[in-house]
Amino acid sequence: MQRTNAHAWKRLSKGEHEGIWPDGVAPKSAHDGSSNPRADLAVEAHELAGGGDIPGVDVETWTEEGITVTRMHVHDEQAARRMGKEPGRYSTLEVPGLRKRDPDLQERVSQRMAEELSRFLELPETESALVVGLGNWNVTADSLGPLVVDKLFVTRHLFHHIPDIMGDGYRSVSAVAPGVLGITGIETMEIVRGIVGHVKPKLLVAVDALASRSTKRVNTTIQISDTGIHPGSGVGNRRKGLTRATLGVPVVAIGVPTVVEATTIIQDALDYLLHQLAKGVSEQVRHVFNTVDVAEKRRWITEILDPLGDNLVVTPKEIDAFVEDAAHIVATGLNVALHPAITLEDAALFTH
Amino acid sequence: MQRTNAHAWKRLSKGEHEGIWPDGVAPKSAHDGSSNPRADLAVEAHELAGGGDIPGVDVETWTEEGITVTRMHVHDEQAARRMGKEPGRYSTLEVPGLRKRDPDLQERVSQRMAEELSRFLELPETESALVVGLGNWNVTADSLGPLVVDKLFVTRHLFHHIPDIMGDGYRSVSAVAPGVLGITGIETMEIVRGIVGHVKPKLLVAVDALASRSTKRVNTTIQISDTGIHPGSGVGNRRKGLTRATLGVPVVAIGVPTVVEATTIIQDALDYLLHQLAKGVSEQVRHVFNTVDVAEKRRWITEILDPLGDNLVVTPKEIDAFVEDAAHIVATGLNVALHPAITLEDAALFTH
Amino acid sequence: MQRTNAHAWKRLSKGEHEGIWPDGVAPKSAHDGSSNPRADLAVEAHELAGGGDIPGVDVETWTEEGITVTRMHVHDEQAARRMGKEPGRYSTLEVPGLRKRDPDLQERVSQRMAEELSRFLELPETESALVVGLGNWNVTADSLGPLVVDKLFVTRHLFHHIPDIMGDGYRSVSAVAPGVLGITGIETMEIVRGIVGHVKPKLLVAVDALASRSTKRVNTTIQISDTGIHPGSGVGNRRKGLTRATLGVPVVAIGVPTVVEATTIIQDALDYLLHQLAKGVSEQVRHVFNTVDVAEKRRWITEILDPLGDNLVVTPKEIDAFVEDAAHIVATGLNVALHPAITLEDAALFTH
Amino acid sequence: MQRTNAHAWKRLSKGEHEGIWPDGVAPKSAHDGSSNPRADLAVEAHELAGGGDIPGVDVETWTEEGITVTRMHVHDEQAARRMGKEPGRYSTLEVPGLRKRDPDLQERVSQRMAEELSRFLELPETESALVVGLGNWNVTADSLGPLVVDKLFVTRHLFHHIPDIMGDGYRSVSAVAPGVLGITGIETMEIVRGIVGHVKPKLLVAVDALASRSTKRVNTTIQISDTGIHPGSGVGNRRKGLTRATLGVPVVAIGVPTVVEATTIIQDALDYLLHQLAKGVSEQVRHVFNTVDVAEKRRWITEILDPLGDNLVVTPKEIDAFVEDAAHIVATGLNVALHPAITLEDAALFTH
Repeated sequence: MQRTNAHAWKRLSKGEHEGIWPDGVAPKSAHDGSSNPRADLAVEAHELAGGGDIPGVDVETWTEEGITVTRMHVHDEQAARRMGKEPGRYSTLEVPGLRKRDPDLQERVSQRMAEELSRFLELPETESALVVGLGNWNVTADSLGPLVVDKLFVTRHLFHHIPDIMGDGYRSVSAVAPGVLGITGIETMEIVRGIVGHVKPKLLVAVDALASRSTKRVNTTIQISDTGIHPGSGVGNRRKGLTRATLGVPVVAIGVPTVVEATTIIQDALDYLLHQLAKGVSEQVRHVFNTVDVAEKRRWITEILDPLGDNLVVTPKEIDAFVEDAAHIVATGLNVALHPAITLEDAALFTH
Repeated sequence: MQRTNAHAWKRLSKGEHEGIWPDGVAPKSAHDGSSNPRADLAVEAHELAGGGDIPGVDVETWTEEGITVTRMHVHDEQAARRMGKEPGRYSTLEVPGLRKRDPDLQERVSQRMAEELSRFLELPETESALVVGLGNWNVTADSLGPLVVDKLFVTRHLFHHIPDIMGDGYRSVSAVAPGVLGITGIETMEIVRGIVGHVKPKLLVAVDALASRSTKRVNTTIQISDTGIHPGSGVGNRRKGLTRATLGVPVVAIGVPTVVEATTIIQDALDYLLHQLAKGVSEQVRHVFNTVDVAEKRRWITEILDPLGDNLVVTPKEIDAFVEDAAHIVATGLNVALHPAITLEDAALFTH
Repeated sequence: MQRTNAHAWKRLSKGEHEGIWPDGVAPKSAHDGSSNPRADLAVEAHELAGGGDIPGVDVETWTEEGITVTRMHVHDEQAARRMGKEPGRYSTLEVPGLRKRDPDLQERVSQRMAEELSRFLELPETESALVVGLGNWNVTADSLGPLVVDKLFVTRHLFHHIPDIMGDGYRSVSAVAPGVLGITGIETMEIVRGIVGHVKPKLLVAVDALASRSTKRVNTTIQISDTGIHPGSGVGNRRKGLTRATLGVPVVAIGVPTVVEATTIIQDALDYLLHQLAKGVSEQVRHVFNTVDVAEKRRWITEILDPLGDNLVVTPKEIDAFVEDAAHIVATGLNVALHPAITLEDAALFTH
Repeated sequence: MQRTNAHAWKRLSKGEHEGIWPDGVAPKSAHDGSSNPRADLAVEAHELAGGGDIPGVDVETWTEEGITVTRMHVHDEQAARRMGKEPGRYSTLEVPGLRKRDPDLQERVSQRMAEELSRFLELPETESALVVGLGNWNVTADSLGPLVVDKLFVTRHLFHHIPDIMGDGYRSVSAVAPGVLGITGIETMEIVRGIVGHVKPKLLVAVDALASRSTKRVNTTIQISDTGIHPGSGVGNRRKGLTRATLGVPVVAIGVPTVVEATTIIQDALDYLLHQLAKGVSEQVRHVFNTVDVAEKRRWITEILDPLGDNLVVTPKEIDAFVEDAAHIVATGLNVALHPAITLEDAALFTH
């Protein structure tokens, strides 16, 4: 092999998931200006599907002290196709105030997340859980999962070695951060399946960084679902799903959007502009905007973002601090929800 | 003071520079959709000014083995106003291939940067230099300066303590990373002026992360200039300039764009779309696009990016690795240019 | 200069302070097995001086809820010579329980430190303070100072730009981490003097990692003094003092021992063994132990520790976590003590 | 459970491996002053066993350009008991010059390590290898394994997805850093076994930080062996071995000592002192030294090191930089040895 190729391979072998594809063979992105954009967040998929009443989808939403809670239930496959989200339950906390980094609010969000999460933990407290922190610890926008794992109160080894001092109200919890394909050379799915086979948890909790369609949701939103992690989700593409079907145990997924993909924001800008321009012009003129087809928009997006395309993201410049905050909130919520005997006050001790 | 205020203050006191402004009193951004957008890079300012021949501005550009070099000389204040850049000399290296993270190319860019930088070092090699790494080490997009400082071959203390072993070809070099206002509570300018007063270098080299107007230049471009650092430059606003006028020594600035501001990319998208739509429509229809005034565009941008506005940036998701690469390239170039006796091969030893 | 020399210089130019000395020209260490070992901590200097009543030295000590407080006053130069510590006041908190990483205890230590520190802040709350975090952020054992600076509530810029919203009870606080000679090429003293000249604080607080003589005090002890920082103190040698005499403002020093130098522990082990062996043997035999002179002990220590000597330290393996804890405790205490309006609860918000 | 206990548990659940044991139930350490001290390094076990000719142990040693190579073969169980090391082959590189951080020497050591390692890779180059980086990324002294994993050229996914561009001379390599029990709650052995079951490599390479008995070997020594990783090895105790017997594939272990345990150095100091004192005294006096029994020495060591005992280590203060260097050297050597087509020059590209 030529040395030049070795260089190219290095590029391929490190960093993010998409990096495994050499130029020209990358899989067709879901974010291609087509009429079916993907949304990691159920609340956004619902908006994309037109919002309002969608047959087979129950939605309930309310706001309490700065936290907007949305519970959504996608009842069947047909509804799932309409929504572009798997059948199952989704709970979303939207907290615009998190942008202000107010620790009191952060604490309340952890508490509220723990309560919401408890609705997904349908197993007795004596049953064990394995938390999987997905993502790449070397890429800030993708490091949420590994950061959460570092802040968890893991107890499985304590139950094994010193069961006497473990009282009521503590669950056997273990945790791993399996890394990404570019670092390990192994599909996340293979690593997790191998560990599940030996640890035999009764529940798997998968924590992952997501992409939002809107900057206002970045680092201010937590989604919990019982649908597992599916190919194409996550900031990078995990490709092989972590689901009850593939793993044999229930999978609860917790996600926080840390970026908006640049293609999304540009597409939204174009759509917004076309919409604005079309307002209040004559019928005759409006046809101009209707002539802009999907293929043309896709060309424009490519033109504007060239040459980086899918790997460009929009984030707050202070993403490092926001992701750290989000990991703290999620880990605190998990510690409280997984161990009934741990209070919010106690939980702070483990994530400090 | 109320506790609530203390929380707000925390937000103010940490993180990036802009953070010092409470809601509503932030200074009017230069990126406000007005007709005079700012450009950190001279090559972009030149494009914004219409490109081509601008009176009082000399431009020379060529490409050698994947590196496009542009030398620009802004001769007087009048030309400076036309360009939106201070009078002085600017050298820019544009290297799209850096995106591939090829170490051979990185080495060649260091070498080329060292040669270009040497044109700005008009002092004998026995004269001392102070390198100032601007920016915030806690914010990846803004950490270029501090990272470069950590990789420099500093020698000033060696000249003081063991002058005998310092042979010809080595310059007395010192370096500091003064941090940002939000961390120190002190204007960068005050810290640097204090240190310059004691160290008394003959030359100051300021290294800083910039914002580009185009994603293709992010992490692939190095700009060297003799105009110093001016208020409003940099990813954050340093506010008080580092210039020959304020410091009493020549100031060479080295900058690498690490982000595009989201407002820029959205504005460009809107302009691009308006331009595309206006093509090939009748004169009658085209007037619709002309009715979109600056104020309206500004409202649209705010609408699309709400609520984060100026703090949103567009970056490659793998920004951590790219900024590390850029720091390596710049530090290597600096080590070679500042110490004539150091070869490129030697230089690698110090940045390893 | 030969390339080989460049390599040697690199070694000299990076890392810790002592690194500036090429082989063979290092200054004679104070830890040389001589009969006058140095102690960073006043409580240890007092023990070395024989403990008990020392003319010109007042000592007061008590324990409250796991925190042993010792206040020491070295009244004059003569007493200073007896003690090996500068004249002035020293307060020490010894908290063996910190080893258990109990957040409740950590909070109480911050509170107690703030109270003790307040006795050293003899200026009105409207007067400004500059905190200097000494040490090297790239060397865990020496990173306490920079870590504390990152966790402080700095306000100086807020007073300048938005004085209206600053209520009573807040002090103008600024902070810098000037780095070490090996990184900057500039004496810490020069950098600090330059900044003090521009910022003109009424008080300087210097935070530094220390060396203890006993492993039991590592990461469990906080010393506050009004004597400034003196040459030869700190984990590295700062060489030029930061004192009222050199800077023109009062200097309060806060130190936490993060290591025991290996030479110290070996010497103590030898002394301890000689002492143990001498017990209960006949007068005739005991003379053997008396024949071990200082020079011989020094040779033995060199033999045991060869070839690293002075740069070897003894630490808990988990030093990373302990230093992080200590920085959190000290920064919290500083935030409470410097800003009378900040409660302990508020303070946690800034160091989070 | 009481809140106090939760605090204690936190302490137990984080940080290093030993931490899982509450006070008083820790397993009896091998470093207890007993007459059978443990040595991670075969060359040290050989010294402890008296050096020279040991039946059933072949030793070959030579020095080439600053690198001392020792090949040792422990032929059978009986020899293993004499040596305190498992039967098998051990190659050790001792390179005192690494202390000087000379990149040229580092490169030569990588090359030499690759050659020595090749003797242990008895499989065709088309066979796959899994590299396991043992240890805790949050504890500098224990982070060698995870650091090496981050610098490897992993290719397994490339073979799967784009086999065409993989030419001759590249091996399918995957890599994981499974973390430690205190972080995951799962025995390293369980995680590795699960992954081996799915990845099915033909060879496992385990990289781990070791403890040396001598400061001169810290960060200057690389040991390669075909005996796997055994309970009680490593800086922390991995407890369940990674061996051909437990995993079903050959296991090559690569270790670098990053610390000396403090108990070791104190015990050596005591032994050295007793030896020195015993020199040249009369027979009558010498009996004093013989009365010092093992139990007494153990009491003394505890007295000197109290209260941290086994968790205290001796390291160079600049351990952060040395461990980073060692990871670079080992990863480079691995990249060269695992992929025959990669030259040393190429290898630098991947570890940069």
